[in-house]
Parts: sequence; structure tokens; C-alpha cells
Amino acid sequence: MKKSKKISEKYIIRNYLRKLHFNKKEAFDFKNDAAFLNLSKNKQIVVTNDTIIESIDFFKKDPPESIANKIVTYNLSDISSMGSSPYAYTLSLCLPGNIKDKWLKRFTKKLYSLQKKYNFFLIGGDISKTNKIIISSNFFGYIKKGKILKRKGAKINDNIWITGNIGESTIGLKIKQKKIKVNYLDKKYFLNKYLYPKHFSFGDKICNYVSSAIDISDGFYGDLNNLINDENFGASIKKKLIPYSIKTQKLINSRIITIDSLLSSGDDYELIFTANSKNSSIIKRISKKNNVKITKVGKIIKKKGIYMDDKKIKIVEKSFDHFA
Amino acid sequence: MKKSKKISEKYIIRNYLRKLHFNKKEAFDFKNDAAFLNLSKNKQIVVTNDTIIESIDFFKKDPPESIANKIVTYNLSDISSMGSSPYAYTLSLCLPGNIKDKWLKRFTKKLYSLQKKYNFFLIGGDISKTNKIIISSNFFGYIKKGKILKRKGAKINDNIWITGNIGESTIGLKIKQKKIKVNYLDKKYFLNKYLYPKHFSFGDKICNYVSSAIDISDGFYGDLNNLINDENFGASIKKKLIPYSIKTQKLINSRIITIDSLLSSGDDYELIFTANSKNSSIIKRISKKNNVKITKVGKIIKKKGIYMDDKKIKIVEKSFDHFA
Repeated sequence: MKKSKKISEKYIIRNYLRKLHFNKKEAFDFKNDAAFLNLSKNKQIVVTNDTIIESIDFFKKDPPESIANKIVTYNLSDISSMGSSPYAYTLSLCLPGNIKDKWLKRFTKKLYSLQKKYNFFLIGGDISKTNKIIISSNFFGYIKKGKILKRKGAKINDNIWITGNIGESTIGLKIKQKKIKVNYLDKKYFLNKYLYPKHFSFGDKICNYVSSAIDISDGFYGDLNNLINDENFGASIKKKLIPYSIKTQKLINSRIITIDSLLSSGDDYELIFTANSKNSSIIKRISKKNNVKITKVGKIIKKKGIYMDDKKIKIVEKSFDHFA
Repeated sequence: MKKSKKISEKYIIRNYLRKLHFNKKEAFDFKNDAAFLNLSKNKQIVVTNDTIIESIDFFKKDPPESIANKIVTYNLSDISSMGSSPYAYTLSLCLPGNIKDKWLKRFTKKLYSLQKKYNFFLIGGDISKTNKIIISSNFFGYIKKGKILKRKGAKINDNIWITGNIGESTIGLKIKQKKIKVNYLDKKYFLNKYLYPKHFSFGDKICNYVSSAIDISDGFYGDLNNLINDENFGASIKKKLIPYSIKTQKLINSRIITIDSLLSSGDDYELIFTANSKNSSIIKRISKKNNVKITKVGKIIKKKGIYMDDKKIKIVEKSFDHFA
């Protein structure tokens, strides 16, 4: 008879989490109550914090790989948008008592592969019992002193750029919620965009040439607004310049989805950045070299607010969100 | 008519959290998605992570000041037990949508006073909506390179010391849960110990003279076991040497509480540390100077396991807990 296993703290650490510290001495093999960060001089540590919650940021039955990908992407996107490279992270896992071995295995295997890909390791954390899955993480990135890319720094007449295509994750969520219907292949495509968002590790490559940057986690309008908020200037955007994938453009053309909804919500994890015109050609060269699509969508202007083809956009304040 | 207020992310930041960054440039006035840590060379950063959850670590109706005190104490205790001093922290707040202004005010006022007292500041975080209150935090401490106090490092024949008195928080919890009954004054005293545990910022003062250290967050037995776990030695403890307050001793004498239950559970946040006999007098001098009660309770021995007056203690593995 197979003995029933008690999935204890020590069991989870021994079988799953210990693989994730990559034998770095900073983690003490998870045998201390704290870890340490070791950086050479002339480097600064960038810290970011994100929490994802069942039924809000993901659904109970989503693949564990998707949940692992989200907590990593949300944080790496912040690290990258500040121009820094990932170094290490902590993980606070709130899990139901009946969590399955298989779930833990798939979740940590995905973490492992993302750590290998982007070169960072787990330094510690915390496990607690809850009804819903809640995962909170702090990520640490490093950057040369004085090179931090800030949200505040744009100047009037700077160009506004974005990476990649907009709105794909939002369409995936709407399909999942059965708010819109599309064909089988499109469904698969967009669901994948919702479940497995990717961040762009592009901020550290362009940090010398841009005046401000932010990642899109609250929708294009929301984050552009965060960039210009409290400043003595605004943003003018050309509707026809916003980049969409061919699949998204088809859904817009057939009126299955509105441009307004695509720009108002969604975790695209693309980067919005601003730069002086004189840097346009070098930025284009860097994007080409790194195979990152970038598009100039507008300009920073004197007038406050966001204007799409000269029409002022109303920004609705979200009720609860991350504050730094 | 008073307009009803929407307690939004921006509202919470503006009215409550912004006071907590102490205008440190590292926090970017919470206007970036990440913050940074700035330390001089020759210093290392110690990182710790703890999460507290409604109905497990505190109760819904506990004073907000108590909840603030717990998230700070849990983390500062880890920082201090590694011999480091606090520097900054992040806060991931999961709050019910109907959270009251008054709650936020009291919660953040307590954070403010603890920050002032122990000299650290808030660098960022995250706010999410949940049913239960869950608060996760990463704390950062600094320490001179090479001075980190570890759990592993005790040697055979080292003395085992503890700070303060044992078991007071456990008694407070049992009174709260109506598992034991005491008189009015004792109730007030022990409830206060449960609601407002204090950490000892003592680790940084003795780090040159001790071989290992751990804070008591899982009970005396549990954390002593963490100290000797996986090692080729054990611990011998003298029952009569364990320090209790006069009030606790009275409850033991009148058999309202057993010694075993006091040593098996509870968040005392006292420090267990080990040291070579030759350092006893300097350690005593430091404790006297800092007004910290310390007691020698036993020795590290060759035989594996924990022995109380030569009787082996059975350690029950907790199901879920912090892993680093």
C-alpha cells in the first residue's frame, strides 16, 4: 500500500524549491531565515514587488506553468523597464492545503526554465496555507550606478515609442471569459498570449538613449497616463500608428473588438518609452539587432492629458493596483 | 452631504503610504514600478520575506496596530538574528475592497512609528483586493561584509543561550482562543504579548562572539531543532534553566499551562544563540549594556537530537511555514 504523503513545508522545499537556488551561496540552501545580496561596487540593486491572486490575475484551473510565467513576467517587466537585468527573487507562496505534487512540479519546472533563460535565482521566501492561491514576489535586478531608467524624464517634443503589438492579452482574456467568440485557431493563439505573456528585456539596451520608460501592465492608456501624470505636459497619439498583429487587426476590422477596449486594459508587458528625435536612428538600430519590433506612435506635447488624433482621452482610475 | 469616498490605490498611496518612504530617493516617491537599494561598498544586503494571513497569524478584529507590529516584528526578528540592521522594506497589501479609512490610518501610523524607532523606510510594494487580509513583506538589512550570523556554525560544547522569557505569546493566544482562563490583569498582560510581540535588535551587537543564532518563531523546540538539524551534533537543555516571567511561572505552578506546550509553539521572537565558553563574559557584558536579559540554558552535545534533562524530545514537523 502506498503511504499517503504529507505535503509539508520541508517536503516542498526539499523536492521542488531547492532546485531553484542554483546553489548560490546567497540563499544559504534555504537554511537561514534570510538571504543576502552580493553585488560588486558601482552597481545598484533595483527592487520590484508584484502579487498575483487566483480569480483576479489567473484562474484556478489555469496551467501551473502559466501562473509561474505570470509572476515572473510581471516582475521582470518592471525590472527591465527600469533598464536593469534580473539577479534574484523571493517567493511568498500562499497555497491551499490540498495542493497537488503534480501542480508543484509543473509550477517549479517552469520557474526553473525561466530562471535559466533570464539568468536569475531564488534566494528565499515563505509558504503559507490559504483557500486561494496567492503568489507574491520581490525581484532584484542590477544596474550600473546612475543608469536607472525612470518613469519621469520625458521632455516636450520627445517621440513616444512602443515595443511589439498591443491588445493580444486582453483579447485572450475576453475569449476566456466568453465575452467574444473567434475561430479555433485564433482562440488558441490569443489564449496563449493571455496565459503566457512575455516581457521584453530591452530597457537595459536602450537606457542610454531614452528619456523615460514604463511597461504596459494597466493598458496602453493607463500606463501612458502614469508616464505623464503630475507633469506639465501631455501626449499626442496617432490612432493609425498603434501596432496590432494581423490577427488583432482582423478582429478590429470585423468589429468583434474595439480599439478603445484594447488600449484601455490588458497586461501587454510591452514597453512605452520616450526619446529625443536625435536618438531615433540609434534606437532603431538597437531594436533591429535585438529583433524587437518598435513603433513610433506619437509625441510629448505641451498640453496636459492624452490626445488620440486630437481627441482627449478620459482615463478611469483603477480601484486597486500596485503602487511601486 | 458628505461625498462617499472611493478608497482607490492612488488614494491609499497619497493619504497613507507616501508618508512611509521618508522622502528617500530610492523609493522614487512610489512613482516607478521598482525601487533601488543604495549601499556603500563593504556592506552586504540581507533579505528576508514573511507573510501574515488573517485567521492564521492574526484575527480580523485585532487592532490594526497589532497587525502592523506583527509584519514588522516577524521580519525585523529575521534581520536581527542574522546580525544585521534594518534598512528598507516592501509591502504587498491584500485588502478587502471595503477596507476602512480608519483601519488604514491606524495601520500606517503604527508602521510609521516603528520605522522611526528602528530607522528603516518603505521603498514600494503592491495593493490587491482579496477577501481576507494578507500582508507580505520583504525586509532589507545591511551588514558589514563577512559578518553575517548564520544558523549553521555551532560547535560541540558551545553554550546555548536565549534572550528574554519564553512562552508569553503562546499563553496570550490560548487566552484569546478561550483555551485557558486567567484573571483580568494576567489576561491583559498576556494578550498584549500576543498582539505586540517585540524583536530583539541584539544579533548585530553580539555577532563577533557567537557561533550561530536563530529567532524563535516556531517555538523553542522547533527553532532549536532548526539550528541543529542535519548537523552531526545535538542539544542538551536543563529544564530548570529555561527563563519564564513571574506571571508565566505562576500559571505553570498552578498547572494552567504545561511547560511542554510553552516550548513547542509560539512566536516569542527571542533569540537562541550558541557561543564558545570563552566568550561568555563579553556576551554578558554586552547584554547588560543593552539591557537585554540572556540565559544560558544548555550545551551543544555530540549525541544527535534535543534532550531535556537527558530525555529525548520528539519534534513534530509543521505542515506549512516560511522556508527562508
